[in-house]
Amino acid sequence: MNRAESSYEILEVRFGQIGALGEAARVLTWDRSVNMPRKGAPGRAEQLASLRRVVHEKTTDPAMPDLLDAAEDEVAHDPWRAANLREMRRRWVHASALDADLIAAMARADSECEMAWREARMADDYAAVKPYLQTVLELVRRAGEARAEALGRSVYEALMDVYEPGARTDRIDALFDELAAFLPGFLDRVLDLQADEPQPLPLEGPFTVDAQRSLGERLMRQLGFDFEAGRLDVSLHPFCSGVPGDIRVTTRYDTVDFTQSVMAVLHETGHALYNAGLPPEWRRQPVGAARGMAVHESQSLIVEMQACRSAEFIGYLAPLLREAFGGTGPAWSAGNLCRHYRRVARSLIRVDADEVTYPAHVILRYRLERELIAGSLSLDDLPGAWADMLDTLLGNRPTDDASGCLQDIHWYSGTWGYFPTYALGALAAAQFFETAMHARPGIPEALSRGDFTPLLAWLREAVHGKGSMPAGTDDLLEEATGAPLGTDSFKRHLETRYLSNR
Amino acid sequence: MNRAESSYEILEVRFGQIGALGEAARVLTWDRSVNMPRKGAPGRAEQLASLRRVVHEKTTDPAMPDLLDAAEDEVAHDPWRAANLREMRRRWVHASALDADLIAAMARADSECEMAWREARMADDYAAVKPYLQTVLELVRRAGEARAEALGRSVYEALMDVYEPGARTDRIDALFDELAAFLPGFLDRVLDLQADEPQPLPLEGPFTVDAQRSLGERLMRQLGFDFEAGRLDVSLHPFCSGVPGDIRVTTRYDTVDFTQSVMAVLHETGHALYNAGLPPEWRRQPVGAARGMAVHESQSLIVEMQACRSAEFIGYLAPLLREAFGGTGPAWSAGNLCRHYRRVARSLIRVDADEVTYPAHVILRYRLERELIAGSLSLDDLPGAWADMLDTLLGNRPTDDASGCLQDIHWYSGTWGYFPTYALGALAAAQFFETAMHARPGIPEALSRGDFTPLLAWLREAVHGKGSMPAGTDDLLEEATGAPLGTDSFKRHLETRYLSNR
Repeated sequence: MNRAESSYEILEVRFGQIGALGEAARVLTWDRSVNMPRKGAPGRAEQLASLRRVVHEKTTDPAMPDLLDAAEDEVAHDPWRAANLREMRRRWVHASALDADLIAAMARADSECEMAWREARMADDYAAVKPYLQTVLELVRRAGEARAEALGRSVYEALMDVYEPGARTDRIDALFDELAAFLPGFLDRVLDLQADEPQPLPLEGPFTVDAQRSLGERLMRQLGFDFEAGRLDVSLHPFCSGVPGDIRVTTRYDTVDFTQSVMAVLHETGHALYNAGLPPEWRRQPVGAARGMAVHESQSLIVEMQACRSAEFIGYLAPLLREAFGGTGPAWSAGNLCRHYRRVARSLIRVDADEVTYPAHVILRYRLERELIAGSLSLDDLPGAWADMLDTLLGNRPTDDASGCLQDIHWYSGTWGYFPTYALGALAAAQFFETAMHARPGIPEALSRGDFTPLLAWLREAVHGKGSMPAGTDDLLEEATGAPLGTDSFKRHLETRYLSNR
Repeated sequence: MNRAESSYEILEVRFGQIGALGEAARVLTWDRSVNMPRKGAPGRAEQLASLRRVVHEKTTDPAMPDLLDAAEDEVAHDPWRAANLREMRRRWVHASALDADLIAAMARADSECEMAWREARMADDYAAVKPYLQTVLELVRRAGEARAEALGRSVYEALMDVYEPGARTDRIDALFDELAAFLPGFLDRVLDLQADEPQPLPLEGPFTVDAQRSLGERLMRQLGFDFEAGRLDVSLHPFCSGVPGDIRVTTRYDTVDFTQSVMAVLHETGHALYNAGLPPEWRRQPVGAARGMAVHESQSLIVEMQACRSAEFIGYLAPLLREAFGGTGPAWSAGNLCRHYRRVARSLIRVDADEVTYPAHVILRYRLERELIAGSLSLDDLPGAWADMLDTLLGNRPTDDASGCLQDIHWYSGTWGYFPTYALGALAAAQFFETAMHARPGIPEALSRGDFTPLLAWLREAVHGKGSMPAGTDDLLEEATGAPLGTDSFKRHLETRYLSNR
């Protein structure tokens, strides 16, 4: 074993073991969604709870504060080690903030509420799940208060900090206010334009699962995904998990409509490329992890939205689709496929929303969850507040709670403070892509040949290889693009694509 | 969390968590054989090593000896808790016997030697792997000496004890000497008889993987396997893993010959039924685990060899095979299938051996590994000793080392003292089956209808549901069959099947 000598070296060994246990939990979680039979659920919950307990015990070991303090001087002149120590401390602060009883109570409440939500959503019965959600909300608030005290931040910021280190509400308010001011008028203009254009011609199926899977694997290879270091499988909702050397991408197949599955594969492969490109010399160390969920989402959206819905890439994709599914005629032209992949609507469901209306869904959830945490909105008033805000942002109202406040799992499973990262990721993707296009002007031509090499090379250097070396999303954006996160690139992107149709 | 009060209750909580971490490791190990891409291997090794380190740390916690001692009085009048405490102590003794440096050195040596073996076996180059095997052997001997001191047993017995609690060489010598005296003459008689019988008619393929998998799943259902609590997958070598509620069976498919895959599925389903039938109220506790590897093997062999190669079951199986593969004509008759499944030969490869010659392979490995551990046989002399002993036991000599001492992974991966459990399992299977047939005379008629209910009911009560309540294999055999493990039932079984052809 390592003969650690300095405090920092002792910490590296300890966090390396914690990291390996975290990786083990990722395999178990992937397996739960992909393979596990129904009756395996209670046992799997115990396995994951035991792993989490060990990770918590090891992170909050009584020796930690002294080790962290003693290591400060040892790493002062080494930026990577200093950043690693900063991230170690961050994990220690978060882990120490919560006591074991609260963690156990949350795990139980989250699990019960999530089960109740599954039935309530199917039955469109918000009242049935509301008491469970009330318990979850109260525990989340308690956890947020404990984290807030440890971090010296507000309760909601402390909740966000778990997913988005250093996130500040004043920054997010400013960005989201700009978007909320821009989007409704922009949406009207896009919908007017699209009303005058020809409707997309339907793509006639059925599309076999085998053909969709082969195509997905082919596209993943084009993107640079290594099937000796990863897999593509099926799950109810697409996701990307796994670890470098063993990346696990999932999708789902609909034999009536292949278009969603193809884009889900491309989206998740964006996440996969980030995981695969993290700095290998910092594997399992805190500084070797992805910078946060906003940056992670930016890496999926730069692939799916920026690169793969470009006219250049769809020009490359169209003949592959014709070949995969035996399609012929004008419906299978690049132009018609572009119309499919750029259709905008006043959507009700976040996960089905186009890239123009998606941010509005996120802004709504961000504003509502802040009010719920603060206590200025009650769960009784949530459905009405939801409908009114959606009307303001998107000009549409849910037809029922199933298409309103029951649609997302997040709150019901105890995930609060996560939503903003989706829209921050969309902003970051546009900003990264714009910078990459300036740095490597050959990107569009390469995409027209299905060649992601120049884009990926830029991302590897500017984003992936930095791990958690920058302290937060804004620091990473500044290093990579010369400016903190803003809305200009995203608005330019939308205008170019949806008003100029390029 | 549990508010443990007594020492015993504290121990139950601790071992429950250790048990959950062990279950997590099983999922990771299954995934490694079924799903993991090549480049995931180093990361997975770290994950499993970290899990093992945590299990070792928790099992050897400094508080353990006092807790174990203090709990003795608390459980004195409760047989299950007393047995659980006995098994806890067994785990503590084994874990405490080895220090972390030796465990780490073994993990490294085992892994290096196993990799060298994979190439050496393909190249038939024993000399290339011998230095690695020498290192493994020396470390295994050191570990055996440490375990022997902790257990107060001989070095080889201490190595066996990991897989077969309480195993004694004088008992195994007596059983194996009886078999070694019986088998060569018996084998001559069987081969003479089979030479006079018609040869099995060939079964003409190809046999699609889909048809084989459907048939395998159908047979597993017949056996009582619950696909809401388990799966069937593909791996290089068939095995059964997983946990109650989530049992993972694997097989492999050969499109030229379905006969091996079908029997592999039945064999592994025998293991699966044992895992699924362990006492649920003792889930994750030491007393809730399978009694040992000999009993585990008996549960696969009672299904594969005793039940599923019976004339009754093959009469049920024949029409299913014809239906699955579209077979017609005399080759697909029950009689011809029996001849396939009862063919005996002077085999060279253990895993391909029939049930008559299989024990000879095990006896050979048992005798050789004892000598290697004791130092009375050197690795230089292993190939010659192997050939001579096989000649004595089976009247055959390996054509090369690949079909001799390079054929099994066990020694090269650090697994010493395991081999005897295969033959002990065959003896136990025959003894259990004979008893079950007396207790439930309807078993053969049920098998002729593919109905395993009466056999499974007996096994659930007599074997599965007891977990590790009996202290060892002989205790379990005495409870279930009225006698410790012997060779009589097995010999009677072979004589009935291979001389009387019933």
